[in-house]
Amino acid sequence: MIRINASYGKLTSSYLFSEIARRVSDFQRANPEREIIKLGIGDVTRALPAACVEAFKRAVDEMGSDETFRGYGPEQGYPFLREKIAQEDFQARGADISADEIWVSDGAKCDTANIQELFAADVRIAVPDPVYPVYVDTSVMGGKTGEWEDGRYRGLVYLESTEENGFVPDPPDETVDLIYLCFPNNPTGATITRDRLKGWVDYARENRALILFDAAYVVFIRDPEIPRSIFEIPGAREVAIEFRSFSKTAGFTGTRCAYTVIPSSCVAYDVDGAAQPLGEMWNRRQSTKFNGVSYPVQRAAEAVFSPEGKEQVGELVEYYLTNAALIRREMESLGFRCVGGRNSPYIWAAANRDSWDFFDLLLDRAGVVCTPGAGFGRCGAGFARISSFNSHDNVMKAMGRIREALGG
Amino acid sequence: MIRINASYGKLTSSYLFSEIARRVSDFQRANPEREIIKLGIGDVTRALPAACVEAFKRAVDEMGSDETFRGYGPEQGYPFLREKIAQEDFQARGADISADEIWVSDGAKCDTANIQELFAADVRIAVPDPVYPVYVDTSVMGGKTGEWEDGRYRGLVYLESTEENGFVPDPPDETVDLIYLCFPNNPTGATITRDRLKGWVDYARENRALILFDAAYVVFIRDPEIPRSIFEIPGAREVAIEFRSFSKTAGFTGTRCAYTVIPSSCVAYDVDGAAQPLGEMWNRRQSTKFNGVSYPVQRAAEAVFSPEGKEQVGELVEYYLTNAALIRREMESLGFRCVGGRNSPYIWAAANRDSWDFFDLLLDRAGVVCTPGAGFGRCGAGFARISSFNSHDNVMKAMGRIREALGG
Repeated sequence: MIRINASYGKLTSSYLFSEIARRVSDFQRANPEREIIKLGIGDVTRALPAACVEAFKRAVDEMGSDETFRGYGPEQGYPFLREKIAQEDFQARGADISADEIWVSDGAKCDTANIQELFAADVRIAVPDPVYPVYVDTSVMGGKTGEWEDGRYRGLVYLESTEENGFVPDPPDETVDLIYLCFPNNPTGATITRDRLKGWVDYARENRALILFDAAYVVFIRDPEIPRSIFEIPGAREVAIEFRSFSKTAGFTGTRCAYTVIPSSCVAYDVDGAAQPLGEMWNRRQSTKFNGVSYPVQRAAEAVFSPEGKEQVGELVEYYLTNAALIRREMESLGFRCVGGRNSPYIWAAANRDSWDFFDLLLDRAGVVCTPGAGFGRCGAGFARISSFNSHDNVMKAMGRIREALGG
Repeated sequence: MIRINASYGKLTSSYLFSEIARRVSDFQRANPEREIIKLGIGDVTRALPAACVEAFKRAVDEMGSDETFRGYGPEQGYPFLREKIAQEDFQARGADISADEIWVSDGAKCDTANIQELFAADVRIAVPDPVYPVYVDTSVMGGKTGEWEDGRYRGLVYLESTEENGFVPDPPDETVDLIYLCFPNNPTGATITRDRLKGWVDYARENRALILFDAAYVVFIRDPEIPRSIFEIPGAREVAIEFRSFSKTAGFTGTRCAYTVIPSSCVAYDVDGAAQPLGEMWNRRQSTKFNGVSYPVQRAAEAVFSPEGKEQVGELVEYYLTNAALIRREMESLGFRCVGGRNSPYIWAAANRDSWDFFDLLLDRAGVVCTPGAGFGRCGAGFARISSFNSHDNVMKAMGRIREALGG
């Protein structure tokens, strides 16, 4: 008899986005004349940079001719892209990463999830709270947690991000083996300083733990003091894996390209305590279960690093950051304490009430959709995530409406 | 201390393709003047159909404008593609499959591997021998086998495909839970009749087992009597999952698009013996760990079903089948017993000697590269896989050289 993986039974359904959709659709039905502006979702809205579009189409043309056609590519990604990434995203910033330490993939979501396959089922995992739900759900599906109880999974260590610690948790007193960190953070928009990130690297080295560093939003960092990569921190090469994506960098959410960095000296341990290189394990995993990213997509990603591509990506990022600054300024002037919105596309606002009540208030009185913080974990209660991924016009209109509804 | 998944330690390195590459490069170094023709690899060589190229580029243009840009798509694939697949690949052939039973992905390799996550670690898995190595290696990595011993993994049941059974194994006497079948087969090129496939469906129903049916080469079937889909067999909807790909159909090996079919009535069982719908579990898995296929790639795949696309795919398939027929005819006329090469792009030839000796003989005397059958499993010893994925000119030249070297 074919039996299921019992761990799937532990998963609680994620009602967050379906509950949001239900409330929005109820509201729209009751108020068909009201126009709704969505600042809830973490998806980009503007076109691919022109340099990417051109490179993309040139590569499709190559696929259309027998002479230049390409079949299976390297599972690790084409050297032309891996080399550009190593040079531009790391070496240019003083991080010692080479092309053969980079694996190109179709998404950071896939990679942050699939990486768990490399580890023993009984490793102790730490996740932020509030958290990007993929880290948690994947841990559950992989059999690495206990049951759901009082809004949390037993066996997971939750790293609380609160106003008290500036939404940046310090290492726990207890010992954990695998640590998910995400900076600039989703959902809070908080960033981490070099010193505090060094604290995590030191913790990992002392405890032979491993940090999974999700840097999907790195392109929004403008402050030169904030580290872009964990590999700017001395000692990180042995204890960290970094995940990056072209999704938010260059509008690739629908195009799909990302990458994972595993330094050759990054290790985990076998039952005898012997260090095993994780890059070799990931390479085996990817070669066996993955067939590489679409060739034209890799050419489009490569164009992000061309002079025109860099300029166009810079404009795109500036556009969203201008939205973010406006949202934060307006929310603060209305008396809401905020984090994020600088060096991040997300604003995390103290709602001064229950986060679902705040959601309803914004929807009813301003016709604006945000994301209730409670959906991201226990520490999100009383907060809301507001996203800058929309047009200037819509953001200005939304903030005007919020001022009218909640101001004075 | 972060510990590794110990199952990776059980993996034997796959030396097949690296050993082939080593021998070819040694030969080329010793014989720089000799031109080598590769009939070893399972990768297509001809351009994407023009209809796909055009649709691909149109969709890239959509991504280049704010008005028509698309961000995250549905993890399951866009309805426009799922509906075309359901109609054209299933309903048109009398197989009762609807669009919401189809999940679009970036590769059948990924899907045949990732599907294992849905099942308990102690399910008993049956794999063909000779076998596409992904089924086996994934079982090992997922902790579903014992150690490697005498050329096989303990705990796996090997379904022997031999000249005696026409390279189509019957269900085993013992009970297994999860069964990988692949028809038209890689590497043998054998196809399965409706009756014998019904035997497998009946076995699965009697034993509450599940069949993972890999139909990546289905487009090469010309014989109307051979089933294209396992869902043409009554009763299969409850006990089978089918994997399909655009890779060999339309030359998408470098473009990446595939799909998995899980009927709504297909189930596995929980610890209490209650039936659980696998489609819902796969949907949860894909939503959590995957972010959908690149939008322009899905548009390119959709174009496969347009009138022009169908005609162009038909020509492409005919081209390779003409190669395949030539290879089989020539090999048989030289006294090698063959299977495949009809309704399949692969020819499986009895080498009349050790398969590596045959590989060396072909390389040394004809400058032609094939794949030694022993690389695919114990039952592959004494056979060679010859692939039709090359140009007519190269195939004709290769067969002429083989005739000269081995004939008379």
